[in-house]
Amino acid sequence: MTRVRNPQLNKNGELIHLLSLERLPSEIVTHILDTATNFVSVNDREVKKVPLLRGKSVFNLFFENSTRTRTTFDIAAKRLSADVFTLDIGRSSTSKGETLLDTVDNLSAMAADLFVVRHSQSGAPYLIAQHVAPHVHVVNAGDGWHSHPTQGLLDMYTIRHYKKDFSNLVVAIVGDVLHSRVARSDIHALKVLGCPEVRVVGPRTLAPAGFESMGTRVFDNLQEGIKGADVVIMLRLQNERMSGALLPSREEYFKTFGLTPEKLRWAKPDAIVMHPGPINRGVEIDSAVADGPQAVILSQVSFGIAVRMAVMAIVAGNSA
Amino acid sequence: MTRVRNPQLNKNGELIHLLSLERLPSEIVTHILDTATNFVSVNDREVKKVPLLRGKSVFNLFFENSTRTRTTFDIAAKRLSADVFTLDIGRSSTSKGETLLDTVDNLSAMAADLFVVRHSQSGAPYLIAQHVAPHVHVVNAGDGWHSHPTQGLLDMYTIRHYKKDFSNLVVAIVGDVLHSRVARSDIHALKVLGCPEVRVVGPRTLAPAGFESMGTRVFDNLQEGIKGADVVIMLRLQNERMSGALLPSREEYFKTFGLTPEKLRWAKPDAIVMHPGPINRGVEIDSAVADGPQAVILSQVSFGIAVRMAVMAIVAGNSA
Amino acid sequence: MTRVRNPQLNKNGELIHLLSLERLPSEIVTHILDTATNFVSVNDREVKKVPLLRGKSVFNLFFENSTRTRTTFDIAAKRLSADVFTLDIGRSSTSKGETLLDTVDNLSAMAADLFVVRHSQSGAPYLIAQHVAPHVHVVNAGDGWHSHPTQGLLDMYTIRHYKKDFSNLVVAIVGDVLHSRVARSDIHALKVLGCPEVRVVGPRTLAPAGFESMGTRVFDNLQEGIKGADVVIMLRLQNERMSGALLPSREEYFKTFGLTPEKLRWAKPDAIVMHPGPINRGVEIDSAVADGPQAVILSQVSFGIAVRMAVMAIVAGNSA
Repeated sequence: MTRVRNPQLNKNGELIHLLSLERLPSEIVTHILDTATNFVSVNDREVKKVPLLRGKSVFNLFFENSTRTRTTFDIAAKRLSADVFTLDIGRSSTSKGETLLDTVDNLSAMAADLFVVRHSQSGAPYLIAQHVAPHVHVVNAGDGWHSHPTQGLLDMYTIRHYKKDFSNLVVAIVGDVLHSRVARSDIHALKVLGCPEVRVVGPRTLAPAGFESMGTRVFDNLQEGIKGADVVIMLRLQNERMSGALLPSREEYFKTFGLTPEKLRWAKPDAIVMHPGPINRGVEIDSAVADGPQAVILSQVSFGIAVRMAVMAIVAGNSA
Repeated sequence: MTRVRNPQLNKNGELIHLLSLERLPSEIVTHILDTATNFVSVNDREVKKVPLLRGKSVFNLFFENSTRTRTTFDIAAKRLSADVFTLDIGRSSTSKGETLLDTVDNLSAMAADLFVVRHSQSGAPYLIAQHVAPHVHVVNAGDGWHSHPTQGLLDMYTIRHYKKDFSNLVVAIVGDVLHSRVARSDIHALKVLGCPEVRVVGPRTLAPAGFESMGTRVFDNLQEGIKGADVVIMLRLQNERMSGALLPSREEYFKTFGLTPEKLRWAKPDAIVMHPGPINRGVEIDSAVADGPQAVILSQVSFGIAVRMAVMAIVAGNSA
Repeated sequence: MTRVRNPQLNKNGELIHLLSLERLPSEIVTHILDTATNFVSVNDREVKKVPLLRGKSVFNLFFENSTRTRTTFDIAAKRLSADVFTLDIGRSSTSKGETLLDTVDNLSAMAADLFVVRHSQSGAPYLIAQHVAPHVHVVNAGDGWHSHPTQGLLDMYTIRHYKKDFSNLVVAIVGDVLHSRVARSDIHALKVLGCPEVRVVGPRTLAPAGFESMGTRVFDNLQEGIKGADVVIMLRLQNERMSGALLPSREEYFKTFGLTPEKLRWAKPDAIVMHPGPINRGVEIDSAVADGPQAVILSQVSFGIAVRMAVMAIVAGNSA
């Protein structure tokens, strides 16, 4: 782990894996977003298919179940004309005691080109990327609380689409920031793209002061936190958190941090409201906001397919 | 819900969704069957594939599990060259509290073209069809006890194939008519196509008098019910019904309503025997009948692929 | 069952099903291996796809779960451009009481071209092959303890690749030979290809004298068994066997039969080490051997895709 070079880049500085937005050069982030623009138009066409990954084998390795995220990668890969193989890891050989890297070695020997990896443990995609042969690529689809880079990228795409430029933006991320890989990925990407003010907003128990060291301002009051914001990113409240002592009841949470049309007026009049989905109506977000004119939540979903197509097309085109 | 127009048709009267055979004009039913004829020949070819849905994204939304029906739609869509995505809904976001329509909105934002919907609640496909964007199509793959229109259509295709014309036919539907969406769909389709005599036959508890209002004759005696019939449609006896008080034992049921070669002689000598599958040998049908010369059960399966190809190709070609 | 003709061959002696390596003529085995050579190069190409099975429908019928084997067939079929349908049989109609042959009949009626069958009962693929229509092909992906012919073929491919010729080889198969379909398939194939000495090595309880009637030499001492061997095939120790009284502890097993670098020196210096996977590190094989220069375990995996492509391409090109 003493290597200095970013394991996501080859020696020419080209993207070969997407593991985290941390330490990713802004030119690469911008290149991904620019490439995604082309794929947005592909998804609007009658024939939503380009031959860029034709004859390539993409493996979805979901060690942690997420039908929603897996489907987005499945769609993106098939629209690039790849052959897609989804492994239900819980039922495969890993349950027979095969190690993670043995599984990866076996699939690589079957001539895999790209692994999409979701794992409950932070760093698993890094471990795989360091292990695979030079022609194999790894895309992180979420690892533990650490990172969810394609979500971060699609959020950046969405912000750029609606706000054009990051250089004067105030972006507020609201909710359970502590447990959110989305929040971490967004913060890294916003910093890389030059966003001057990123705020995290939530109960003190869920947005601890440590986030200040990431260059964000921390608020435990929603009004102060979203005041004057151009972009409000609402995070999903995980039901499983509610059982612990970290949070009051759902009703109490909604009263304090749930975004209603009234509270949204604290942000700028043209502020956009984002959410990684799936939304909890009446918990972190009111239906009047989720279905209202400032919400861009479904645009995020659309752009997400294009961004994932861009990431896969770019890494598959470079070699280690 | 006060709209008068049939939600399955656009303003030009073209089919944009297939939700139910009820209220479907006979020209449309006939057009589907005529189109299916072409696809029957595709399925006989070396290369069983046509490019009609190339680059389209078909989503199988099976809120109720049915491997068999899902496979038939999967085959049909792939032979039309579509990309097919199957969502195991029980494990997806709906289990995280996402609503049905939020799930559909998200998939639509991913540029879905066609939803194949199976749901345990009657009306769910209607709800989705009324909600989706104009370019998105919905095909009902079975909703509650209400409707199973592609099964109805493939039954009509089969009858037309063997009997040419509906205008002089006697069709008997035998079994648990009360709980059967197949029976309801068949009855609607037979009426639309001008079949003069549709009979439902079964224990009084399972074929109540209410069916008479649908224009059928109700029998609780098998001999009377299939006497002189051109077509005998045997329904599957759901095992789960047996636990209730509605029915005697399986043996008793077979004795009274199970179709044996002897009982089949009550129908016309050239009567065909149909069944939606999977068959319960020795419960509603004797093996000697199921495997005998009058059974057309496997032809129904073959025609079913062609009919589903026809439905998907037709709706995907029209816009709201 | 009184037919004399090999059910795997048509009247011209061409392969129409792959059910077992037993009684398969050596020319056919050699033809499969030669054909696989071409597909090895396909798997090295940028576009890993050939149109040989385009428009064909391949069904994976896995009555016994095996994600690993199913994935290899899935990959092989898609690289031949087939449409692949995987049936999770446990959840399908067979659980509704449909018989095996009714399931097969139904899928055949949907215009299936090839069934890949995995079943816990020996002979199930034979039963299916005898039942299907002349244009439908069956490939056995493992039936009970009986046979796993594509594993046997990929093992032969691997041996031929590294050793060129079978006529002077000593091959030792080590482990739980009694319960291993891999061992049975390898023994048959080695005999067909003219290998003069096949040894089985393991605890007396797991490699009974009955194997001598198959033309092998039986050893219960590892040193004697692998002495002078050109090829050492280590079998996976099934964890579930450990609970019975057949075996001592895992530690004891490793001490006696686990292959370490020290013990491997008993074999020829250029001996290759094979394993069907997934490996149990530290049970039947030491990591230093599994990851060492003599192991060809990952080559087996690569060749396995090519061999399965060859088998499917060959049977699909012949008719009954």
